[in-house]
Amino acid sequence: MLEPSEWFTEVVEDEGSAFSLRVTEKLHEEQTPYQLIQVYATAGFGNLLVIDGFVMLTSRENFLYHEMMAHPALFTHAGPRRVCIIGGGDCGTLREVLKHPGVESVVQIDIDEGVTRVAECYFPELTNANRDPRARLLFADGIRWVQESAPASLDLIIVDSTDPVGPAIGLFSGDFYRDCLQALAPEGILVQQSESPLYHMHILTDMHADMRRAGFDQTRTLFFPQTVYPSGWMSATMARRGGAPLHEFRIADVCSKPFETEYYNADIHQGALAQPEFFRRALTQVLGA
Amino acid sequence: MLEPSEWFTEVVEDEGSAFSLRVTEKLHEEQTPYQLIQVYATAGFGNLLVIDGFVMLTSRENFLYHEMMAHPALFTHAGPRRVCIIGGGDCGTLREVLKHPGVESVVQIDIDEGVTRVAECYFPELTNANRDPRARLLFADGIRWVQESAPASLDLIIVDSTDPVGPAIGLFSGDFYRDCLQALAPEGILVQQSESPLYHMHILTDMHADMRRAGFDQTRTLFFPQTVYPSGWMSATMARRGGAPLHEFRIADVCSKPFETEYYNADIHQGALAQPEFFRRALTQVLGA
Repeated sequence: MLEPSEWFTEVVEDEGSAFSLRVTEKLHEEQTPYQLIQVYATAGFGNLLVIDGFVMLTSRENFLYHEMMAHPALFTHAGPRRVCIIGGGDCGTLREVLKHPGVESVVQIDIDEGVTRVAECYFPELTNANRDPRARLLFADGIRWVQESAPASLDLIIVDSTDPVGPAIGLFSGDFYRDCLQALAPEGILVQQSESPLYHMHILTDMHADMRRAGFDQTRTLFFPQTVYPSGWMSATMARRGGAPLHEFRIADVCSKPFETEYYNADIHQGALAQPEFFRRALTQVLGA
Repeated sequence: MLEPSEWFTEVVEDEGSAFSLRVTEKLHEEQTPYQLIQVYATAGFGNLLVIDGFVMLTSRENFLYHEMMAHPALFTHAGPRRVCIIGGGDCGTLREVLKHPGVESVVQIDIDEGVTRVAECYFPELTNANRDPRARLLFADGIRWVQESAPASLDLIIVDSTDPVGPAIGLFSGDFYRDCLQALAPEGILVQQSESPLYHMHILTDMHADMRRAGFDQTRTLFFPQTVYPSGWMSATMARRGGAPLHEFRIADVCSKPFETEYYNADIHQGALAQPEFFRRALTQVLGA
């Protein structure tokens, strides 16, 4: 039995599963205008960030998620210069994007400044690139920001959001995808976290269908482990109108990348593109052959 | 808080993590001469098999593990005819092996007949190939069986065991690997479940080192999701003396395989061979460049 005083537990009611981390101390708790933010020290995973009861990240293994939200899309684009991150307030994705010397500007738009302030305090390794002159941090509504962006002004939009409940639900919609498409320059890429392939196939197939209906004619899902999210298995989905196929990427540039990673490399990128049989079949049913 | 009467929970003490499944009924409980076997009905994962408190498999997603224990090694070998499975009493790996028409014989050696009897009752979809005339089920000590095998009598040894504690510990040892090597024909392959890349890097690096010391000059780890095992991320490690490189496989045969899978295909096989950066670095430290 797990003593509630010793464990943080996230229950996935729809699936009848739960994941728990042993906590040694509550370091922070704050109700912002948007959400409840908690930080715990854990026995085995370093610090743990929780928002509205959902695990957001741990010190130990957030590299899996942040690297896979950033590098595959960046190396798929031929020369991404102008990047925006919707959500991502912990700044871990931002840090990975800034590792690319070709990137000239990154705007991060998270609705809740509280997340970034907490990250600065308890996950400083994620925010240590924030003073990079190429980075701009806005605390505003990302949906509206994209809506009001100049047409064709972005090469890459990364949607690093919470699950499609509450404030993030508008990020999983055809209207938002249409706004992204108009904000993207030719060859531009949208990439969005798309939940667990085991638990959330309906979210994944809906996302592909909605992106296509919004005008993207290419969509492609990347798969990777994310050991503290429900099922431990995660995905991100890329979309593009026209341009080179999304399963092609700058392999030579990955192999000579001027920065270190913990998980990502060229083989991992290629491997993340592999579609499980059940996924391929489900997607074919929705999109056609 | 998780009511113990409603949830089965497996705690990983060393990591300070736990995974839980909501159970609706205990279907079976039996103390065999070797271990405690329990079967639960769950709310979201079908039936759940537990041995000595550790999750073994669920109806819903065991395909991930069983397919990845069988097909990559079988398609890496040029023409596997004689296969043995050490452990694997639930018969899920056996079922996958028997899908290969070129396989002429499969011997499964699990020490505990109780596991197979329980699987027949509560996971009949895993045991429905057991009457295949090519299959032989032995209930005996797998370590001794390999020791006493005729030299060069096997093309593939699959070690589908519990964790390296208790009765399975002898399966994670140099002596066992030496016995496997003598039992394998030229070009023969050993493949063994090798735990979580996030939690058990020491087991993985030890396994590679022990396999090399035992005389295998090639070792290669495959990575895949396994959503009910600790961390949700799993691996299997192949070993071979001489022969073609372990990262090459019969791609054309995979693409025209005469059977269905839920997860495995040629891209998944290739992707499972991708080594995360942290893994590659750790292995290089142990084995040299």
